[in-house]
Amino acid sequence: MKLAIVQTNPIFGNILKNVEDALGLMNSVEANLFVLPELFNTGYNFQSQEEVKELSEDDSSFTMQTMIEFAKKKSCYVVFGYAEKVICDQYKKQRTTNQEQSTINHEPSYYNSSALIGPEGIIGKYRKVHLYYREKLFFTPGNLGFPMFDLPLGKIGMMICFDWFYPESARSLALHGAHLIAHPANLVLPYCPDAMITRCLENKVFAATTNRVGVENRNDINLTYIGTSQVVSNRGKILARCSDDKPEIVVVEIDLMQAENKRLNEFNDLLADRRPEQYTL
Amino acid sequence: MKLAIVQTNPIFGNILKNVEDALGLMNSVEANLFVLPELFNTGYNFQSQEEVKELSEDDSSFTMQTMIEFAKKKSCYVVFGYAEKVICDQYKKQRTTNQEQSTINHEPSYYNSSALIGPEGIIGKYRKVHLYYREKLFFTPGNLGFPMFDLPLGKIGMMICFDWFYPESARSLALHGAHLIAHPANLVLPYCPDAMITRCLENKVFAATTNRVGVENRNDINLTYIGTSQVVSNRGKILARCSDDKPEIVVVEIDLMQAENKRLNEFNDLLADRRPEQYTL
Repeated sequence: MKLAIVQTNPIFGNILKNVEDALGLMNSVEANLFVLPELFNTGYNFQSQEEVKELSEDDSSFTMQTMIEFAKKKSCYVVFGYAEKVICDQYKKQRTTNQEQSTINHEPSYYNSSALIGPEGIIGKYRKVHLYYREKLFFTPGNLGFPMFDLPLGKIGMMICFDWFYPESARSLALHGAHLIAHPANLVLPYCPDAMITRCLENKVFAATTNRVGVENRNDINLTYIGTSQVVSNRGKILARCSDDKPEIVVVEIDLMQAENKRLNEFNDLLADRRPEQYTL
Repeated sequence: MKLAIVQTNPIFGNILKNVEDALGLMNSVEANLFVLPELFNTGYNFQSQEEVKELSEDDSSFTMQTMIEFAKKKSCYVVFGYAEKVICDQYKKQRTTNQEQSTINHEPSYYNSSALIGPEGIIGKYRKVHLYYREKLFFTPGNLGFPMFDLPLGKIGMMICFDWFYPESARSLALHGAHLIAHPANLVLPYCPDAMITRCLENKVFAATTNRVGVENRNDINLTYIGTSQVVSNRGKILARCSDDKPEIVVVEIDLMQAENKRLNEFNDLLADRRPEQYTL
């Protein structure tokens, strides 16, 4: 299958332009699966909950519908990161003056999410489990675990940016059978690209880390993104790596079925040799 | 504290010479903790269970007693890898012709172990949980989990060689509070040294990976060890790295209390931000 990593430079708050820029790159190649950055349509550097409310989307919104249309037209799959608005998805306890009582909370929840889209529409979502830094001010921690989606082209799981830091993320996906980790990111620190080699080795999975480039300076919070989007094989080999400063799209041909094989040698099977009874996790 | 990694070139089966060579290096420096390779006294490339029986040691044997003597004389700590013989440590079920019955098995068990020695003698042991390749023919899988030992110089845990491949090993040690992972190894593949950077970052712990050098060619099974012993900091920095082909000892001064701090920034605490209810492990 042909896997495309779509490295973009979003302008904060300009959803229309950000989606158009991504589509411009996506229309320039042929691929079976396109992986876009985290929060690719909104930008990352939120300064207030009001901005999140304004820029978040539900399933009927512009970005989702545009990507569904693209996937239908091209008969392909797309993974993209966005700010997800979910209305009434949970009950919260509110403390009153004299007693504690359960009330239904009608405030929407906002997640740092990714969606997996196919020719048939929305296939699944992932909500970022490990929120980084000021994301904790604006987003609710993900509540869907690390789901795997069994597509005709292979078994796909998602994690978002800082999730790489927790080996439990990629391990959960591998234990669910994922062949490929689609990994939208907005990286500012230098560690992730090399660490993903370890993630792929230790799980014998492929990974597509798609990062953004550019700078977001808002209210003196200055973030510079490192680009370096990459595809790593199930043997820990870097199959493609993007520049650190330019929007670009790279297509890699990979055989996801290779990730079905968890044998390391004639004596060792990666997952069968785990020994959970000896771990403290 | 001063941490010494002791990279040696063991000759298979020559325990006396291998221990003497290690002591020669160890006596050439001052350090609070010395970390030696996996199976440093016997060599690694076993060809039969008979060899394991012959070269394995219990607590009263030469290597253990020599290291205890060294630790007493120098008022220091030592971690070393060896083939551990354990008599009568478990009951095994034996199937008979007509019925299944429990019988006491008086055969010793043999572990690929490491010992932590101090001025007061044996402090603790670790038995390799993840056996690699032909080790499965000769050793029993470790049954002690990943214990942590709280010493005056800091909290020390051990893992052995291939355990690095499983993120659960270092994570278990970090969750037990370890500041430093003492990591005796006999590496033949190139991946571990760089992957240990990820292990230290993702757990905010120090690690001392001590590998051996040299070649062992026995019965056409030819192993070349990669040396490259190293100390990595709790921030993923390589503090020292040895050559890939020479015996040597390197001493690094580190402050293990730094590994007590698990904060990543004002919003994130490494261990507190784990979300086990979202994992499948």
